[in-house]
Amino acid sequence: MRDIGVGLLGLGNVGAGVVRLLYENATAIEARLGARLVIRGVAVRDLQKTRLAEVDASLLCTDPMELATRDGIDIVCELIGGEEFARDVVLAAIAANKQIVTANKALLAVHGEALYTAAEAKGVDLYYEAAVCGGIPIIRALREGLASDRVESITGIVNGTSNFITSAMASGGSSFEEILATAQREGYAEADPTLDVSGGDAAHKLAILAMLCFGTRVQLDAIHVEGIETLAEIDYAMAKKHGYVIKSLAMAKRLDAGIELRVHPAMVPQSWLLADVPDTKNAVYVDSYALGSSMYYGAGAGMMPTAMSVVSDLIEIGRNICANATGSMPLRSQRQLPATAVVPMSALRSHYYLRFSVEDRPGTLGKLTTILGEHRVSIANLSQRPMAEDTELIAVVALTHEAIEGDVQAALSSIADAGLSLAPPQLIRIAS
Amino acid sequence: MRDIGVGLLGLGNVGAGVVRLLYENATAIEARLGARLVIRGVAVRDLQKTRLAEVDASLLCTDPMELATRDGIDIVCELIGGEEFARDVVLAAIAANKQIVTANKALLAVHGEALYTAAEAKGVDLYYEAAVCGGIPIIRALREGLASDRVESITGIVNGTSNFITSAMASGGSSFEEILATAQREGYAEADPTLDVSGGDAAHKLAILAMLCFGTRVQLDAIHVEGIETLAEIDYAMAKKHGYVIKSLAMAKRLDAGIELRVHPAMVPQSWLLADVPDTKNAVYVDSYALGSSMYYGAGAGMMPTAMSVVSDLIEIGRNICANATGSMPLRSQRQLPATAVVPMSALRSHYYLRFSVEDRPGTLGKLTTILGEHRVSIANLSQRPMAEDTELIAVVALTHEAIEGDVQAALSSIADAGLSLAPPQLIRIAS
Repeated sequence: MRDIGVGLLGLGNVGAGVVRLLYENATAIEARLGARLVIRGVAVRDLQKTRLAEVDASLLCTDPMELATRDGIDIVCELIGGEEFARDVVLAAIAANKQIVTANKALLAVHGEALYTAAEAKGVDLYYEAAVCGGIPIIRALREGLASDRVESITGIVNGTSNFITSAMASGGSSFEEILATAQREGYAEADPTLDVSGGDAAHKLAILAMLCFGTRVQLDAIHVEGIETLAEIDYAMAKKHGYVIKSLAMAKRLDAGIELRVHPAMVPQSWLLADVPDTKNAVYVDSYALGSSMYYGAGAGMMPTAMSVVSDLIEIGRNICANATGSMPLRSQRQLPATAVVPMSALRSHYYLRFSVEDRPGTLGKLTTILGEHRVSIANLSQRPMAEDTELIAVVALTHEAIEGDVQAALSSIADAGLSLAPPQLIRIAS
Repeated sequence: MRDIGVGLLGLGNVGAGVVRLLYENATAIEARLGARLVIRGVAVRDLQKTRLAEVDASLLCTDPMELATRDGIDIVCELIGGEEFARDVVLAAIAANKQIVTANKALLAVHGEALYTAAEAKGVDLYYEAAVCGGIPIIRALREGLASDRVESITGIVNGTSNFITSAMASGGSSFEEILATAQREGYAEADPTLDVSGGDAAHKLAILAMLCFGTRVQLDAIHVEGIETLAEIDYAMAKKHGYVIKSLAMAKRLDAGIELRVHPAMVPQSWLLADVPDTKNAVYVDSYALGSSMYYGAGAGMMPTAMSVVSDLIEIGRNICANATGSMPLRSQRQLPATAVVPMSALRSHYYLRFSVEDRPGTLGKLTTILGEHRVSIANLSQRPMAEDTELIAVVALTHEAIEGDVQAALSSIADAGLSLAPPQLIRIAS
């Protein structure tokens, strides 16, 4: 039986999971693949550090660049993270004719185009199932399962930390800060949670998915990104009252004018499957021409789920190596769209939830609604309630009919100019 | 650019969808595949019949066996249906070195083992994404996405007709017969709906999934199958009252003693994602060692969704042909389990919903519960309500703690022997 040499760059959480899965499932993997996946080297930062998985000390080294280009390594498994060095080491590995597996979403979101181009030119495989939604086989579903279809839109819950926090906030009784602290204690949030709660991590994943679905080069800064930090308890309560659940969504949609790309909290109808995605789970809802709607749900992070995707990629590449068929899987949709065709947010059509903090004074509501109307923002439902026990402020909540985002933003500016809302207004788009 | 010759056996609903997708998406498919998928022949029963898709008359023929073995055909796409002839024609195609795509679940459930063996021996591809859950890429998810994982159980809503009926029954107000008639009118149920509502169609799909996940040879008659015909409006109402939704489930589970294989209606907790699968949609919930829980949701039937899976299979095989790498995908899990290791239903451990139709007489309830207790069936909740306005009967509904199915069945026999239930008791297992 043939041996396929694997070089692991990085032995953190996911790397340790990969080692465990390769050892524990070795017999089954051999049977499925018809070859052995053999770890021939593991590049680490510190040779002395305690590991989550046992690796023979003779396999350890501290030079990832040397390992990535070493003879006897067939597949380089990049689990270092980061952008510049990871790019350099992967490019060097491709140049040395190695197949690539990576779980590095930032790398692909920022340097994907360069890496895909290099891999295609060299005819090597570059697999990255673990980079988006951990263990959910969403890359395979889009690349192979829906290969004959035309994806119209994707709507995903792709950040587990944000989903944990919004789910807990919806249950009520705790503040954002308290829930974030709990999430950090239980390992669901990083010590610095910024990338997760601000939507940046979700934007990375959306960039990769959009590249795959639409073949467009996505500049990260072309994605409209809002985090969940400004959502207040009252917003969750009002969402529930109106039949919605607040979720942080990553969305890409094909329109005549280009691609809509956005990450932000949204009011999701309670009847949607996405509304029921609990805790730290992820799900991607896809709308495509022939299949219609489909959804892919599971663990979007974690040691073993993510390692599972990495090892499944190793198996598939191993199969390609055995069949002398590496490099035959296209790395993105060939329906190339111009890189610039990102639809501006001001053109978005949506229903909106708007919350204003106003003084309890006659005429305020009239002025508010008049300004909204002047900007063609039509109100479907209006309610007001005291803001909190210790202030004199009233929360005015308006749910609008479909409106154009540019009009809504202009109305909010006019309302600010008129000094009507004494705190920045809250705007949450309603998913439909 | 290379041409890949496709021979279509059958031009019904799915076949017409395949033709449409191949023509409409030709440019995109060429770009993704690097080759053209060219329909070189279509075998039909009647040359004169009106079609759902336009096909050049010169491509039509009436001899599927000749087409399946004809020079210039690289991939044979079997969409005839049925079992014996379909098997013969696919075996002949394999012998003639053709790659195979089939959407025929009955064929694979009954003759899968013979076909897989023949395809493996000849080194040809046999793809069947469309045979299970139409457009949902569940075969790919299990075969490739979770290739490194160990599936512990699958729980699926895999019959759209049954799901349409149980969903409509749960809304209340209509009888099984009325809803079935609606389903037939709207094209969601066949003129003869037996295979769907009796669970037989779901058993076919379960056999294929279990073969794929566990590598076991599944004899169709080893699957415990119950349909949804005996479920009454009161059962749906009681399910709702207790926080459940009745769904027809197909389940396979790996236990120490073997594989549990069953298709039957079950009470699904309202909090489960499966509880929210609406209308004719399908979903498969998978529990696996490394990934944990994952779910795959979408259109389980219909012309374009099913055709989408067929054409995605054609693309993947086309890619294998171009890379000279056909036959490299294993057709089932290599964790072979003995064909006989199906756990008998009598050994099942479950919670149960039991409904008895009793006369409104003192002492009846006492006798019932005594007999249940004597058989180690412990009651978690007991309620009674009038059966219907025009009878004197009372419905007694018991929700049990976990019990062994053999004990429950023995208790039901004793209750029947004692003449306590004046109609056959209703037994619905509670999913957990």
